[in-house]
Amino acid sequence: MGIIVQKFGGTSVADPQKIHNVAKAALKEQNNGNQVVVVVSAMGHTTDYLVSLAKEVTESPSPREMDMLLSTGEQVSIALLSMAIQAEGGKAISMNATQVGIITESVHGMARILDVKTEKIIKNLKKGKIVVIAGFQGITPDGEITTLGRGGSDTSAVAIAAALNADRCDIYTDVDGIYTADPRIVPTVQKLEQISYEEMLELARVGANVLHPRSVETAKQCNVLMRVRSSFKLEDKGTLILGVDDMEIYKPVAGTAADTSQVRIVLTHVKDAPGNAALLFGKLAENNISVDMIIQSFGRTSGSNDIAFTVSKDDKAQTIKVCESLLPELDKSGEIYVDEDIAKVSIVGAGMVDRPGIAASMFRALANVGINIKMISTSEIKISCLVNKGNEKLAIKTLCKEFNLDCEEAAVVNGDLPPGETK
Amino acid sequence: MGIIVQKFGGTSVADPQKIHNVAKAALKEQNNGNQVVVVVSAMGHTTDYLVSLAKEVTESPSPREMDMLLSTGEQVSIALLSMAIQAEGGKAISMNATQVGIITESVHGMARILDVKTEKIIKNLKKGKIVVIAGFQGITPDGEITTLGRGGSDTSAVAIAAALNADRCDIYTDVDGIYTADPRIVPTVQKLEQISYEEMLELARVGANVLHPRSVETAKQCNVLMRVRSSFKLEDKGTLILGVDDMEIYKPVAGTAADTSQVRIVLTHVKDAPGNAALLFGKLAENNISVDMIIQSFGRTSGSNDIAFTVSKDDKAQTIKVCESLLPELDKSGEIYVDEDIAKVSIVGAGMVDRPGIAASMFRALANVGINIKMISTSEIKISCLVNKGNEKLAIKTLCKEFNLDCEEAAVVNGDLPPGETK
Repeated sequence: MGIIVQKFGGTSVADPQKIHNVAKAALKEQNNGNQVVVVVSAMGHTTDYLVSLAKEVTESPSPREMDMLLSTGEQVSIALLSMAIQAEGGKAISMNATQVGIITESVHGMARILDVKTEKIIKNLKKGKIVVIAGFQGITPDGEITTLGRGGSDTSAVAIAAALNADRCDIYTDVDGIYTADPRIVPTVQKLEQISYEEMLELARVGANVLHPRSVETAKQCNVLMRVRSSFKLEDKGTLILGVDDMEIYKPVAGTAADTSQVRIVLTHVKDAPGNAALLFGKLAENNISVDMIIQSFGRTSGSNDIAFTVSKDDKAQTIKVCESLLPELDKSGEIYVDEDIAKVSIVGAGMVDRPGIAASMFRALANVGINIKMISTSEIKISCLVNKGNEKLAIKTLCKEFNLDCEEAAVVNGDLPPGETK
Repeated sequence: MGIIVQKFGGTSVADPQKIHNVAKAALKEQNNGNQVVVVVSAMGHTTDYLVSLAKEVTESPSPREMDMLLSTGEQVSIALLSMAIQAEGGKAISMNATQVGIITESVHGMARILDVKTEKIIKNLKKGKIVVIAGFQGITPDGEITTLGRGGSDTSAVAIAAALNADRCDIYTDVDGIYTADPRIVPTVQKLEQISYEEMLELARVGANVLHPRSVETAKQCNVLMRVRSSFKLEDKGTLILGVDDMEIYKPVAGTAADTSQVRIVLTHVKDAPGNAALLFGKLAENNISVDMIIQSFGRTSGSNDIAFTVSKDDKAQTIKVCESLLPELDKSGEIYVDEDIAKVSIVGAGMVDRPGIAASMFRALANVGINIKMISTSEIKISCLVNKGNEKLAIKTLCKEFNLDCEEAAVVNGDLPPGETK
């Protein structure tokens, strides 16, 4: 008998009927002879509704009170799901983060989990109960309620699985697994049976939104076997996410992804002086702006550089403000260009590290179909190219063909975040 | 500088605008030089909504999971109210029952408060913060979430006031105080400046629904000075509720009330044997049925009695079931009569105890206007008469006249529970 942690997102518990379906899925796993812990998000659009309520009260609610407010959403879900399991004839108990003891940093809105107490969970599992735990929330050592930010419930599930030394953490979503490319772009893509943590992480970072990178990072650190599977096709085994050493096979290129959620900012005539890049990116970090690709190139005039980088569209206004405030220090003649006409196209594969020709193949394939590359960034297992917006679909199709990803032997990824999974 | 506990019900926090009004009321009290604790209920119809959600999931939700579910309502209110106080320029912190440490019995749906920890409240008051606490909820020593049942938030406020040794506990409601009679029946009634705990308790029990008896009992036990006042007329001082020894004046009859929420059950031919009444009322108590008036009278045949009693309409079906199950034991020839055509009319006054003529005056006044009395029950400071339904308004008017309650010198009570105060 093993321990299985199941995680269901907001769309999976959006109404009483769907909650009963989740109850059945949990009972099915228990009937297979396992001890079952279920982690759930807030129902459907509850979180959006609570955010809008807060905005009606004040334009700038305090993060502490936002966490107090938002954490109620998951508490509603766990109570209703426990009722549903009981109504289906099972035994269940709901627990919020305070009751479990999901200890986080003292940071509101984006706390990291430090520890998960297992005593009460195990006590109830031993009584034959399905333990239903509120995702997305935690508690500081002082008893303050925190939330984990975007992707929080996935991370809760993985952290709980790690603490319990669970056999597997099943993430139930709207998609039935991880694909080599977005099926809406490349209809012939295949679902991957397996993918490594590292590949999944890179794919998540480059725009494949099935899982939040934080949950995959946690799984990798704690060696938690994850499975992404469909809430609507319970018999489907989905995609396993595991350590590269545990993989049966891996390919040079496992998947592709496109991301159109970024803008490119270019600062020209930045003085070629030590510390300027640190000043700029330090200031952006202080403002909680995540920078993705960075390129520093020789400027058009001697003694100065151009610095180009990409940020999320959501951070555009704030980024420009920061840059404008720094311009006098960086160089009085500097200018700021904003380029919204971009898409990021990436290939990911753990096997890439041994094959130096992959990058060249990617650039050549894109050039052959007339796609211009604006920026390039690489990691050990990933190559990303910035192209003009509108070219991303052709690029993905081309890359799938180039790396044999659109046949049965190929690996896979993509998909937008499902509607209910807004955090 | 004193400590003032303010309690606002669901209608007072029904929307963001009203929440801002509550924030202003709290800040006003703080600007008067007081430390302020605010206890709030769930917004408007939130509790009804959550109950209906649970009913969609299952017909018989477990009490534990209902408490988990319902307690989220108050947590939403406290977060929003804290945001509003901060938006109005004040300092505030919200705390749920777990964070405060409002310790209750391990009973779900109707737990009694055993203890209120004051450490965190006082720490935050000393920092100049308005402490906003979730009403209606508690926590067992094991960390299980409980709710306090009907009237719970009033009781939370009084218990917190008692623990803090507060100067006063202000209960803000839809009415602006306690009246000698229902103003809808007797338009000339006056608001009472003061009323004793005992009188308020009797009035609450006989149908005056401004305050739940439990909160008044707690206030009496702990000697908490209560004030009932209007959420909509902050300058109005409302009615003080205090110990009879602290009252400046008190009248033989302080107020009247009518209650049409009961039915009368009559069991005929109950064997005149020891233990029969105990058997009947013991069985009703086991089924959580509260019995109000009880009369046992000589039956029409020798060796048997008739037993008549009143219960809430809500308990009618269950009461009949219990009686039917007992009939064979009580007497095979017994019959059960159900009388729904009743109203209970009461007068209450701490001065009654010294004036033996009050009861006779009441019966004579009712007889003079042709009202027949079906049952009578008395306590030291209360006389209740059961009359035919439809007669209650005439009865109240007659009694107000008889005891001079409809002029400025008279004392007062009544009012239905405000719409949002459904628990």
